[in-house]
Amino acid sequence: MSDSQAKSKRMGGRAAKRALRAAPTPDEEKAVRPGMRGGRYLPLTESQISRIHEAVLDVLDNIGLSQAIPSCIELVTKAGGRLSSEGRLLFPRSLVEDTVANAGRDFVLHAQDPKHDMELTDTKVYFGTAGAAVNVVDWETREYRETTIADLYNVARLVDKMDHIHYYQRSMVARDLTDPREMDFNTCYACVSGTSKHVGTSFVLPEHLEEAVQMLHIIAGGETKWRERPFVSNSSCFVVPPLRFAEDACHTLEACVRNGMPILLLAAGQAGATSPAALAGAVVQEVAEVLAGLVYVNAIVPKHPAIYGPWPFVSDLRTGAMSGGSGEQAVLMAACAQMGRYYDLPTGIAAGMADSKLPDAQSGYEKSYTNTLAGHSGANLVYESAGMQASLLGCSYESYVIDNDMLGAINRTVRGIEVNDDTLSLEVMREVCTEGPGHFLGHSQTMDLMQKEYIYPDVGDRTSPKEWKEQGSTDVLQRAKARVEEILSDHYPDHIDAETDAKIREQFPVRLPRANMVVGSLRRT
Amino acid sequence: MSDSQAKSKRMGGRAAKRALRAAPTPDEEKAVRPGMRGGRYLPLTESQISRIHEAVLDVLDNIGLSQAIPSCIELVTKAGGRLSSEGRLLFPRSLVEDTVANAGRDFVLHAQDPKHDMELTDTKVYFGTAGAAVNVVDWETREYRETTIADLYNVARLVDKMDHIHYYQRSMVARDLTDPREMDFNTCYACVSGTSKHVGTSFVLPEHLEEAVQMLHIIAGGETKWRERPFVSNSSCFVVPPLRFAEDACHTLEACVRNGMPILLLAAGQAGATSPAALAGAVVQEVAEVLAGLVYVNAIVPKHPAIYGPWPFVSDLRTGAMSGGSGEQAVLMAACAQMGRYYDLPTGIAAGMADSKLPDAQSGYEKSYTNTLAGHSGANLVYESAGMQASLLGCSYESYVIDNDMLGAINRTVRGIEVNDDTLSLEVMREVCTEGPGHFLGHSQTMDLMQKEYIYPDVGDRTSPKEWKEQGSTDVLQRAKARVEEILSDHYPDHIDAETDAKIREQFPVRLPRANMVVGSLRRT
Repeated sequence: MSDSQAKSKRMGGRAAKRALRAAPTPDEEKAVRPGMRGGRYLPLTESQISRIHEAVLDVLDNIGLSQAIPSCIELVTKAGGRLSSEGRLLFPRSLVEDTVANAGRDFVLHAQDPKHDMELTDTKVYFGTAGAAVNVVDWETREYRETTIADLYNVARLVDKMDHIHYYQRSMVARDLTDPREMDFNTCYACVSGTSKHVGTSFVLPEHLEEAVQMLHIIAGGETKWRERPFVSNSSCFVVPPLRFAEDACHTLEACVRNGMPILLLAAGQAGATSPAALAGAVVQEVAEVLAGLVYVNAIVPKHPAIYGPWPFVSDLRTGAMSGGSGEQAVLMAACAQMGRYYDLPTGIAAGMADSKLPDAQSGYEKSYTNTLAGHSGANLVYESAGMQASLLGCSYESYVIDNDMLGAINRTVRGIEVNDDTLSLEVMREVCTEGPGHFLGHSQTMDLMQKEYIYPDVGDRTSPKEWKEQGSTDVLQRAKARVEEILSDHYPDHIDAETDAKIREQFPVRLPRANMVVGSLRRT
Repeated sequence: MSDSQAKSKRMGGRAAKRALRAAPTPDEEKAVRPGMRGGRYLPLTESQISRIHEAVLDVLDNIGLSQAIPSCIELVTKAGGRLSSEGRLLFPRSLVEDTVANAGRDFVLHAQDPKHDMELTDTKVYFGTAGAAVNVVDWETREYRETTIADLYNVARLVDKMDHIHYYQRSMVARDLTDPREMDFNTCYACVSGTSKHVGTSFVLPEHLEEAVQMLHIIAGGETKWRERPFVSNSSCFVVPPLRFAEDACHTLEACVRNGMPILLLAAGQAGATSPAALAGAVVQEVAEVLAGLVYVNAIVPKHPAIYGPWPFVSDLRTGAMSGGSGEQAVLMAACAQMGRYYDLPTGIAAGMADSKLPDAQSGYEKSYTNTLAGHSGANLVYESAGMQASLLGCSYESYVIDNDMLGAINRTVRGIEVNDDTLSLEVMREVCTEGPGHFLGHSQTMDLMQKEYIYPDVGDRTSPKEWKEQGSTDVLQRAKARVEEILSDHYPDHIDAETDAKIREQFPVRLPRANMVVGSLRRT
């Protein structure tokens, strides 16, 4: 580099920093926003889609699902289904096609704070959490310890601060609450208290909804307001693959639908164990199961907001254990999302389910290829996208912060490239090359696009090796730890005002200590 | 899980393990092979491609490139180019279009061992290394130390054993060799000695080719045989963006072409510094530069094997420093690859250029989203895909092993999903659900597909948290370290026989100690 080049570079850097300080970028001009449009990755050809669709209809019409509960049989047969002599509930082609045609779509998944609402339209994509982890991993001691209700609240608070995690479905089980009803209630309470983003949860039994729904009415300002903007959805594992209804989950699903709670219709077969090892077959089975669920939901309440969620998991066939971080996993989920776009249904898939037990390089790459393909697949919701380890058995506080940076970058790729007269930059190039300084540093285009075209990581490091050493040679886990501690020590969301919270605590068995009193210190317990 | 389910699961696991031991899978049946077909990720629409193409032609015709060397001016003007009054070499539309139409394509990039040959046809994709790192990072001490010729040889040996790294372009600079000519010769020698896969290198001056080409003739068995199957390509940074030829690199390029050496036409502008900050403009400039190079190469020797290599790098605009691990980087490269498919040219892009200084979670996710989108973009060659840290300033031995697992999984996603009567699995589902055990473990389809549909990581971990703890709670770096040591202690490729090697060592200034004598111990020096 010549002296003059070096000088220009320095000046460019200074000018850039000035510009950065001077102008906070309005949300709508930011390089990355929630709900960018994906759908540019097409794992299946059109003819493959048709064949899968035909196979799905065949499965539903001829194999059907076993173990339907009486109310389900009644609703579905009334709608046009039939019960086979072996007691399997069969879904004729016309019933399935009519349901897909008439199902609720293009709806909004609400948040307590409307700025976090999510429009489930065409290929708009949002990244969020999910899971039922039973352990939190402490990467410093390498210990897996049991998850608690305080963890659920703390992670909600973290997610609340993460720009690129757009909703919070409960990602772990409160193992310190032994009564299932109290656990379900408190899980919902911890999530809605910890973040004003959309919350997903999963009730085990229909009667567990009772206190929770009352609480949600209180928070919303009455039942009508809750039903206008339901900000909690229920993740319904209504099937036990292969092709068998889950009794309790079906009862709960009916209760959720009747209470106006959006439903994630989740079918999670594990290829080679509870669904076919052939990837195409795994897609067929999970799509068939979800469409059966869609018929069921629409038979309860037509057009009820339901998210199509075929989640074909992968087995490591050597052991039968789940491998959520595999390449097979990434392509399976993306194919299901593409089928979702074929049906034009609000689509939710899972990605980010690293097999690695720690947030290490393996964890990073597993989360990244699964989330990247999910983000580009045309899915509307990418569940499990942050925080998870050990194929969903564990999660990590630091991972939420690390994965947030990853999701921001992936979301930048989803945004893609705008091509127009300005961005093609012919005039800029001509000027720089034939009249100007021979570089683009400090050019007005560069300054202008600094925040609009580019995003910057929070704990991700971009220093030179020299600067990095001067700053302590940290890895991303160390930086994420500092960020987690910073957020947990002072971010106590107050979107639910103290009065409302007191009312809830008075009426219901809240087991979470009062927010800013003790929770911060509970983190490592 | 019921007892009978648990029992079936165990039996499935045992049967699976037996099948795994019994039948080593032939290469052509493996779940992942080199040269899978990508091209399912389409970041640009057709109209965006047209507009970019028009802008590229406009740039070449009206702005052109400065600083062409006399031989280049002579060749290109003879072919139809013209020199502007300001001394810029202009490439009229028809010249560019005719060159693209008639350029060499669908050629093979040869390897010393033909089983590693790469067919650069349509969307077939291969992952390999590249780079000019000046440091190796030791993740245990967190020290960056200078790279040596022994490192180049050692990493060649590692790459030789990695199934999912398909070629070895030199990824670092031998800093212990101070004479540039000796460095260039020894770099080539270390690479071709360390692996029988295709090698890429980069000569600094044309006269540096002399000994190297003589050596390559000896290894090939004479000049004719070398020219029939040239197994070393030259990475030519023939431009200094924006739009300016690089004098030395152009002289070297001419020498390489005349010696029958395939060329990577590499244009590496840095968006916001040496190319426009607007991503579309960065694509336009780098594609224009590469097509100028293609005209140049074809004017020297028509249809000479040349790889179209627009590599628009990204700047962190706050500092001007390169950010190879950014989301912007991933989408920029993929867009250039898509333009390559539009021109139907053999296309090489870069991915995997992590900003992180260590192989940590940040490194993992940066490498993964960039490689994933590159692999699906339709590029034929993905350079830098393994081993790199610090935006190309450093590399890590362990990263090559870790990244190999990542690339295997990504390549599995590139393979996609086959849809046919067998894979749709209708009969299998019917059998399992209506007659069989209610699960697919141990089913003949599952056993049969175990190695054909699924790949398994080498150092990636898929154990349960309990097993993981019992096995020492390791992270992937620790496991990769053990694998690196295992390979380096005993893998000394002998594809160049001892007699030939002795001949080379007699005639040329080989500075690398004789292979299995001392190199193993040099690793950490």
